[in-house]
Amino acid sequence: MAAPEIEHLIRLLTRLPGLGPRSARRLALHLMRHRAQLLDPLAAALTEAGRVLTECGTCGNIDTRNPCVVCTDPERDAGLICIVEDVADLWAMERSGAYRGCYHVLGGTLSALDGKGPEELKIPILVSRARESAREVVLATSATVAGQTTAHYITELLAKAQVTVTQIAHGVPVGGELDYLDDGTLMAAMKARHKV
Amino acid sequence: MAAPEIEHLIRLLTRLPGLGPRSARRLALHLMRHRAQLLDPLAAALTEAGRVLTECGTCGNIDTRNPCVVCTDPERDAGLICIVEDVADLWAMERSGAYRGCYHVLGGTLSALDGKGPEELKIPILVSRARESAREVVLATSATVAGQTTAHYITELLAKAQVTVTQIAHGVPVGGELDYLDDGTLMAAMKARHKV
Repeated sequence: MAAPEIEHLIRLLTRLPGLGPRSARRLALHLMRHRAQLLDPLAAALTEAGRVLTECGTCGNIDTRNPCVVCTDPERDAGLICIVEDVADLWAMERSGAYRGCYHVLGGTLSALDGKGPEELKIPILVSRARESAREVVLATSATVAGQTTAHYITELLAKAQVTVTQIAHGVPVGGELDYLDDGTLMAAMKARHKV
Repeated sequence: MAAPEIEHLIRLLTRLPGLGPRSARRLALHLMRHRAQLLDPLAAALTEAGRVLTECGTCGNIDTRNPCVVCTDPERDAGLICIVEDVADLWAMERSGAYRGCYHVLGGTLSALDGKGPEELKIPILVSRARESAREVVLATSATVAGQTTAHYITELLAKAQVTVTQIAHGVPVGGELDYLDDGTLMAAMKARHKV
């Protein structure tokens, strides 16, 4: 009943994560009501992103060039590879400013159900990369069962290579109150206690 | 730290209703991961919508032509004007299939706080339109205080014109259980009771 261009836009918006038909309609109207400030710039930004973005063949980051800006940065330690599940995790690590090495983005965790094996996570590439140039591999997969299983699998694979495998610490998050934490976190924190 | 094209896209997505920085980042990544199925079609649909869509000068509907497809439909009763707050409400009314007249989209309710007076809601245009060609004006603003105040204001204005003013019924929604309804709805339903 609305113009076909609107119906088409709403159908596409419904495919976005977390948007049902109702919120897609509301979003379409919001965009159309703010054409100059929102709809036109967003259309241009999406077109531009689709045109220039590519996946880095070395680490799996998303960037405008391949290899990406992280892999080609001469100031970064190429002997250090941090393994993350997702590009969002790479961004989070970069925001923290705590790390100045390179990355390997798995694109998920090992999962027979989702059909994600070592090949899909580009683990063979990671292993040959680690053998060739890495001094240390830092495991920074999520502290979930799937994340830790994947980390364990990678550790086993790298056991024969001349490379140190480390893992980021699990424990009480900074600013966290003990009372609000789950048992698993407290157990990990207690187990990893160290001398002060 | 991500490519400037991504940062720009995320900034724009943050301006969408209900999206914080975190969900905007996740949405941007989701779009970039599904480029062929989602990002490119969405960019094209937004560009197309921005190019063709316009507001109907008669009723305020959003369409590809002005006057819109509803106002120019010869099968519709031009003597019947239904007053709704928003284009989304017009769509809802059209989906129900219960109405075959024309519309007037206010674009909100009267509100001194939001700087919305009769001019902003195009009420003077509505009054002259009602005087010229309408037989009946149907009030279909929301059953809220703001919606009903606006409806009351329009009723007063049209009192001197040769036009019947009606209002859609308020009561128990079809499929609604009494136990779950608020007092206001039950009161309205009881007050509007009719002989069977």
